[in-house]
Amino acid sequence: MSERRAVVLLSGGLDSATVLAMARDAGYVCHALSIRYGQKHIAELAAASRVASALGAASHAIVDLPETLFAGSALTDEAIEVPEDGGEGIPVTYVPARNTVFLSLALGRAELLEAEAIFVGVNAVDYSGYPDCRPEFIAAFQQVANCATKQAVEGQAVKIEAPLIQMSKSEIIATGTRLGVDYALTVSCYRADDQGRACGRCDSCRLRAEGFAAAGVADPTVYQPA
Amino acid sequence: MSERRAVVLLSGGLDSATVLAMARDAGYVCHALSIRYGQKHIAELAAASRVASALGAASHAIVDLPETLFAGSALTDEAIEVPEDGGEGIPVTYVPARNTVFLSLALGRAELLEAEAIFVGVNAVDYSGYPDCRPEFIAAFQQVANCATKQAVEGQAVKIEAPLIQMSKSEIIATGTRLGVDYALTVSCYRADDQGRACGRCDSCRLRAEGFAAAGVADPTVYQPA
Repeated sequence: MSERRAVVLLSGGLDSATVLAMARDAGYVCHALSIRYGQKHIAELAAASRVASALGAASHAIVDLPETLFAGSALTDEAIEVPEDGGEGIPVTYVPARNTVFLSLALGRAELLEAEAIFVGVNAVDYSGYPDCRPEFIAAFQQVANCATKQAVEGQAVKIEAPLIQMSKSEIIATGTRLGVDYALTVSCYRADDQGRACGRCDSCRLRAEGFAAAGVADPTVYQPA
Repeated sequence: MSERRAVVLLSGGLDSATVLAMARDAGYVCHALSIRYGQKHIAELAAASRVASALGAASHAIVDLPETLFAGSALTDEAIEVPEDGGEGIPVTYVPARNTVFLSLALGRAELLEAEAIFVGVNAVDYSGYPDCRPEFIAAFQQVANCATKQAVEGQAVKIEAPLIQMSKSEIIATGTRLGVDYALTVSCYRADDQGRACGRCDSCRLRAEGFAAAGVADPTVYQPA
């Protein structure tokens, strides 16, 4: 098999769109994977489909998880409001074990597709509050991937690639812009409306806007009417 | 919180029923978790409900995963027959990344329930062919649990307990029998019919029957009519 395949976790946001472009640029045939897990900002999944299509993904699978699985987060629970300032420590937008579950699903899909790599857009700089966005988490999951599968036992363990992990938001945007990512297709906002328009005030919106400004790239984000 | 909680992965088979009894015996309030993942032997889920109830689980959640996720295994794919002799190497009944996905789901549930431990009935002796039943896999997943969650960052990492991992099938059966497990409630067969009756010929049936014989315990398994 000369074709090099990768599974790319694609949320529909800015980071994972950039990662898809980077994986493609690295020569991989990319299979996008998105998860419906009860996120309130469901518009990101439509964004993921647009991004997968625009960046030439070979396939785009959407896995449905029961909404009850990830309860207890501001991103999934209607009773917990998404804050406008995350503050110190682990934000209420933390979703229990989310990246572990997402990477596990990607691991299964990678084995099925005989993929060499899994790409994930975690980023330790902006989101230092999320435990499962840290380099040590990715390293630990790599150890799991090194022994969990038939592929691994046969010497073909999947490589977990997290190319954004130490990049700033502006570096991510500059990289994606160079690789032709159309950020107008992406939705980052935790409180996006049905049309994917951003609130402009949550942590995710704030980091995104600051990133475009710092990168000197025009911000294509469409905001909700005031 | 003085109550000590555990999430117990419960397939409905002999091993996980024993693990549930062991977790209860260790003083945990047990929350059972089963997964519907497209397994052909779906009768095991009804067995899981019976076992959870009989062994006093505080709750029993069943998570539905899309059937396409775990394609490519004899346990999920109608086109791949469950063999009567697994032979050498990794059996065709291997399901890609299954235990990684199951433990990840348990990790999320454990954090939600503020559980201290996750119990899983993997067993390295009988199923040496499954990469994700080996001690090194459990150790690697423990490392993930040690850094993936808010619980872990706060110094309360969930402990992954795999008490059967080095036990023989007869030791497992002897232990469960001592703890009051009614193995008549369990279904181990990969080709169980809708009533949970066993084929008597697949690897799982063979190991189970040998285990009862070696333990000197009467085998309550109900077999399909010839």
